[in-house]
Amino acid sequence: MVNVGIINVTGYAGAELARLLYTHPEAQLTSVSGRSAAGKPLAEVFPHLACYDLTIGEEIGDVDFVFSALPHAASAEACAPLVRAGVPVVDISADFRLRDPKEYAEWYGGEHPAPDLLSQAAYGLTELNREAVRQSKLIANPGCFPVSALLALAPAVKAGIIGPEIIVDSKSGMSGAGRSLDLKYHFGEADESVSAYGLSGHRHLPEIVQELAAMWPQAEAPPVIDKTVSVWSATDPRAAGAPRVTFTPHLIPMTRGILSTCYAPLTQGALPSGEAAREAVRELYRDSYAGEPFVRVADSPPGTKQTRGSNMCFVYPTVDMRTDRLVVVSVLDNLVKGAAGQAIQNMNAMLGLPETMGLDAPAVYP
Amino acid sequence: MVNVGIINVTGYAGAELARLLYTHPEAQLTSVSGRSAAGKPLAEVFPHLACYDLTIGEEIGDVDFVFSALPHAASAEACAPLVRAGVPVVDISADFRLRDPKEYAEWYGGEHPAPDLLSQAAYGLTELNREAVRQSKLIANPGCFPVSALLALAPAVKAGIIGPEIIVDSKSGMSGAGRSLDLKYHFGEADESVSAYGLSGHRHLPEIVQELAAMWPQAEAPPVIDKTVSVWSATDPRAAGAPRVTFTPHLIPMTRGILSTCYAPLTQGALPSGEAAREAVRELYRDSYAGEPFVRVADSPPGTKQTRGSNMCFVYPTVDMRTDRLVVVSVLDNLVKGAAGQAIQNMNAMLGLPETMGLDAPAVYP
Amino acid sequence: MVNVGIINVTGYAGAELARLLYTHPEAQLTSVSGRSAAGKPLAEVFPHLACYDLTIGEEIGDVDFVFSALPHAASAEACAPLVRAGVPVVDISADFRLRDPKEYAEWYGGEHPAPDLLSQAAYGLTELNREAVRQSKLIANPGCFPVSALLALAPAVKAGIIGPEIIVDSKSGMSGAGRSLDLKYHFGEADESVSAYGLSGHRHLPEIVQELAAMWPQAEAPPVIDKTVSVWSATDPRAAGAPRVTFTPHLIPMTRGILSTCYAPLTQGALPSGEAAREAVRELYRDSYAGEPFVRVADSPPGTKQTRGSNMCFVYPTVDMRTDRLVVVSVLDNLVKGAAGQAIQNMNAMLGLPETMGLDAPAVYP
Amino acid sequence: MVNVGIINVTGYAGAELARLLYTHPEAQLTSVSGRSAAGKPLAEVFPHLACYDLTIGEEIGDVDFVFSALPHAASAEACAPLVRAGVPVVDISADFRLRDPKEYAEWYGGEHPAPDLLSQAAYGLTELNREAVRQSKLIANPGCFPVSALLALAPAVKAGIIGPEIIVDSKSGMSGAGRSLDLKYHFGEADESVSAYGLSGHRHLPEIVQELAAMWPQAEAPPVIDKTVSVWSATDPRAAGAPRVTFTPHLIPMTRGILSTCYAPLTQGALPSGEAAREAVRELYRDSYAGEPFVRVADSPPGTKQTRGSNMCFVYPTVDMRTDRLVVVSVLDNLVKGAAGQAIQNMNAMLGLPETMGLDAPAVYP
Repeated sequence: MVNVGIINVTGYAGAELARLLYTHPEAQLTSVSGRSAAGKPLAEVFPHLACYDLTIGEEIGDVDFVFSALPHAASAEACAPLVRAGVPVVDISADFRLRDPKEYAEWYGGEHPAPDLLSQAAYGLTELNREAVRQSKLIANPGCFPVSALLALAPAVKAGIIGPEIIVDSKSGMSGAGRSLDLKYHFGEADESVSAYGLSGHRHLPEIVQELAAMWPQAEAPPVIDKTVSVWSATDPRAAGAPRVTFTPHLIPMTRGILSTCYAPLTQGALPSGEAAREAVRELYRDSYAGEPFVRVADSPPGTKQTRGSNMCFVYPTVDMRTDRLVVVSVLDNLVKGAAGQAIQNMNAMLGLPETMGLDAPAVYP
Repeated sequence: MVNVGIINVTGYAGAELARLLYTHPEAQLTSVSGRSAAGKPLAEVFPHLACYDLTIGEEIGDVDFVFSALPHAASAEACAPLVRAGVPVVDISADFRLRDPKEYAEWYGGEHPAPDLLSQAAYGLTELNREAVRQSKLIANPGCFPVSALLALAPAVKAGIIGPEIIVDSKSGMSGAGRSLDLKYHFGEADESVSAYGLSGHRHLPEIVQELAAMWPQAEAPPVIDKTVSVWSATDPRAAGAPRVTFTPHLIPMTRGILSTCYAPLTQGALPSGEAAREAVRELYRDSYAGEPFVRVADSPPGTKQTRGSNMCFVYPTVDMRTDRLVVVSVLDNLVKGAAGQAIQNMNAMLGLPETMGLDAPAVYP
Repeated sequence: MVNVGIINVTGYAGAELARLLYTHPEAQLTSVSGRSAAGKPLAEVFPHLACYDLTIGEEIGDVDFVFSALPHAASAEACAPLVRAGVPVVDISADFRLRDPKEYAEWYGGEHPAPDLLSQAAYGLTELNREAVRQSKLIANPGCFPVSALLALAPAVKAGIIGPEIIVDSKSGMSGAGRSLDLKYHFGEADESVSAYGLSGHRHLPEIVQELAAMWPQAEAPPVIDKTVSVWSATDPRAAGAPRVTFTPHLIPMTRGILSTCYAPLTQGALPSGEAAREAVRELYRDSYAGEPFVRVADSPPGTKQTRGSNMCFVYPTVDMRTDRLVVVSVLDNLVKGAAGQAIQNMNAMLGLPETMGLDAPAVYP
Repeated sequence: MVNVGIINVTGYAGAELARLLYTHPEAQLTSVSGRSAAGKPLAEVFPHLACYDLTIGEEIGDVDFVFSALPHAASAEACAPLVRAGVPVVDISADFRLRDPKEYAEWYGGEHPAPDLLSQAAYGLTELNREAVRQSKLIANPGCFPVSALLALAPAVKAGIIGPEIIVDSKSGMSGAGRSLDLKYHFGEADESVSAYGLSGHRHLPEIVQELAAMWPQAEAPPVIDKTVSVWSATDPRAAGAPRVTFTPHLIPMTRGILSTCYAPLTQGALPSGEAAREAVRELYRDSYAGEPFVRVADSPPGTKQTRGSNMCFVYPTVDMRTDRLVVVSVLDNLVKGAAGQAIQNMNAMLGLPETMGLDAPAVYP
């Protein structure tokens, strides 16, 4: 049994980790922290976690494995000593996602608290980076939107069938904003309404661009990111060959779920013409995700509800033949595959356990 | 491993059984039926159940244990031959809940299809009828509203602290109405609206009355139901001593969840006066449900969301001291503790397994 | 044209007043105040009110008629000088609802800021108190729950057909809690959940009891409230003959709307027996509300959505013949008939205008 | 007073027309039809319309002005004799929107019922086609998605600042699908879920393309639609110069509202660089819609709720400077500006009344 700790259990990602870990056969949650609620029983803050007999501490105790669900900056500060002490860590914050500390400073507004650890961190989108995850002791758990965008686009990018003019239009439930109070998330304001946000640049954009650039085929776009000397910003798409991504998130009146609709021009001649293009794309996606337990190529456009509470991501690729564009729709639960479930999948991979362990419960539908 | 079949998997209760059974360590779902969808893969009808490689049949195959999620009447007809052949059955329909076939005919509008089996059936509210459940091969799984009302009222009734003038005001999510199409459940009509229904008599009323009457203290109300010769209707509260229940269900714009608010006059002198009354009632409830894994006496008024997807029922008893009334609020997930989870709890009890087996996942909150 | 001002336009009741007044043919909104947003254009705080070219002030300017949408205590303080200066005022806060300042102090936790004005105030449930409203310059606009409970119960109380053991079980949308930030109203917490609150005593209870007591038939319950010397609390139902009300509000995952389900025992012999009782009750209600433009006796159980955005209240009375209880369901929009619409109806009555003026738009359905 | 009739009042668009007409000062609804509900009082089918004393007929009676809310094909059949008899008609169906009957046949699956009337019909997006609307007796009321897309894109297209590679990603509430029963709109299925649909081609696409092509600057794209001899399909974007539009609608768990997010590449050099580009675009939009009462250029990203129940459309244009793309977000109420309100605006224009008449009520927020 692996003894696990959660730093900052009091947000939605932390609570979701606790929920999922409760039925994990090889891991047990033995320590949780959270400053504002320190001293309270976990069951008082979250009655649905009354199955645990744990008190929230100022700090977590001695454990074998740590998840950090702190906000950015605070998270790197808390994780750094653990990583240096050899404790395996999955960081759910954004702190170790961007490889270039200049990018981090630009988007997160401050010096990176532990730039020396960046080279040790693996980007934890397991399906796309499995070997690195298995060998790393520090995982940068991906952002919820990047998971949905990257799983939607990766097969097409790697196969070289799309050009770099990419649009990612995402729709997210309210839990993505966390538990903090703001008029935007007040029921009376948010219910029965949809709105766009982050129009001048959302922090998940550079993460999407960085990962797409890294998987872009050499011939089409020569390696654009020099990992050690960042001569250009991953988010400056004027750099030759880099994907030029517009990313617009929208707030939807539901609690959980992300649907991303991704658009990109097809490379001329990359696919057969007519109806065959659609089947060819579906075939490509099915091949790419064959054997992946948590990614399923859907036969019809999926709804976010089909993934609610589960670690599944459904991907539906198709072709708009009138405009020769690839359109891919992906759905997932932002708190599971977009956060806590992905984190446990990473833990499983790091510990040599089957990736599905503790994550096999079907979605709670309807 | 017990091989399990679900008759009529295509409704919400059937699908929920399949969801919960997937992670049950000692049972495996091997056969599912459903006429309208016969021949289709289960994963096509319910994409969230893509984890199963099962095709929906006209009939279920040879299994060790059967759940029936058919509508009433059809269910008794399907269950009867299985019961007679010795196959253990949990019937989720209403067919074996009312002990008196005249009551059944009155409320369900037709002769009972298998009245001879009524005496073999145990009412499957495990917490209140555990021994009978363990010894029976045919379980009448209780209605969703009766579970919430009976768990809310049982400790007070058994302790003799309330009189028979009872009001049960229930609020239910839409999934309680099943998957059938009706303008009432159309999103545009149901969203952002609350309404009452069943005001001239809901079918769960006689079930609530029957079970309350059966547990009513002898001194207050001598046994009122002659099981073999029904000399009076369990729902005719003018029969001496029987509880006089008004039950009003309401349709709430949410998918899952029932909250029942139950009101009854306190028997004079049964409780200490003032604030102490509240604490005495809470003590009584905590004692009554001590050791029950699925009923928790809440410290503050609970929300249905705390039970979403789980088999928990939270009960919050208090006293309105201005009027000397007991007020008890209970919450549960109508598809789990109110249907499929309760059914699996019964299966566990029948098979001598721990009741919590396969049912220990915390609620999916938020 | 009457020039109207709204004190504290920045809450939901204030904004709803502004919305409704925009199409009023005889009144125009010329001044709005609201301290936190003082100096901002109204259109910035509420984009849906961009039709107005008004700036929010620290105080309202010189107007002919004032609505106060301040919180209690602050409201009485702001209204008192206006009332003394002869400006007609409708106070949407609770400050002038309870006639007994001791009651006020008990429930609102402080001395009444202007007890001398209590005798001048009329309780502004126009349908039940029309003459007083017409002749008063200070209206205590009723609470949203009391409107729904009193319109549901008044005909039965006045006709003497029910006894005093009353239960009011109310379901309210989130806007009833106003625009203040609290985890309870955070979308992720409130969505897909129902919960009860105010179980130890909600502030609308004494208001309901006071008004029911005042209309209670003499023979049944001699006048129980001495308006000048409050010898007993209106909320102490042990006072002889007073209605003994339990009131439980519930929070529903919708923005607008209140549904109240009211239960009371029928006085023996007051109604014919059998099905005729139902028709007799409906007849009584139709007669009571004949000619009332804003109260409609529904032919089937109504949903709150049928009143959304409008000043209508639908009332559906019936009889539970198994238990000889009256059950009345009422629905309304808590921000309109439960607040701003009721306030404008009162203004119309005070100014000698038709009560429906500016309030005749049908509900926004669906 | 103009006597108005509504053909097929029983759907959401028909009922919304009735709602809005009730407070119109110069028009009165005197006749409504609807086959399935013929013979029933309007108030029985729609309790919120109890203000009307109208019975639904098989056919409408003799009126001065007709709105048809029938489904396509049936609508043209019903409108044709009226138009030929000189009765002014606003057709809310799609029948007169596409100018080319071949396009109609391709997208709506049948011969056009009255192709001879196509040349008389004006496309009724009043802001963009005011003169034609004023002079026509037959208005093709635009589709809800096209209204949102065209108002979002028109200023940029007309100013020649964008290229033809356009993506319209729309999010719609459930009422857009009408009142018909389908599992997709069942509350339990639709609530807490988002999904894309129409991925192989939605019927509103050719309408968007046709109108964009018609306003495309000559130099950039020579007139591409020969109205009399349709030598190419307006939806075949391979035709030189035509806008190449991908349109993806999404179903959102709310009742009313459409938000469209529109993306297009900026023409090089069309705008100043850097932050000035954003301000230049906003200036362009403000100028374009100056004086338009129902289109407002928002200062911050708008939510659909700000338009609920009103005829307003909020447009928010911005520039993604990293990719030189125009991004425009528009919001409206699909049943008002997207259907019934737009129809009344057209009626007002046709009758020489102020366009805002009867349409000036602010949105019902929250």
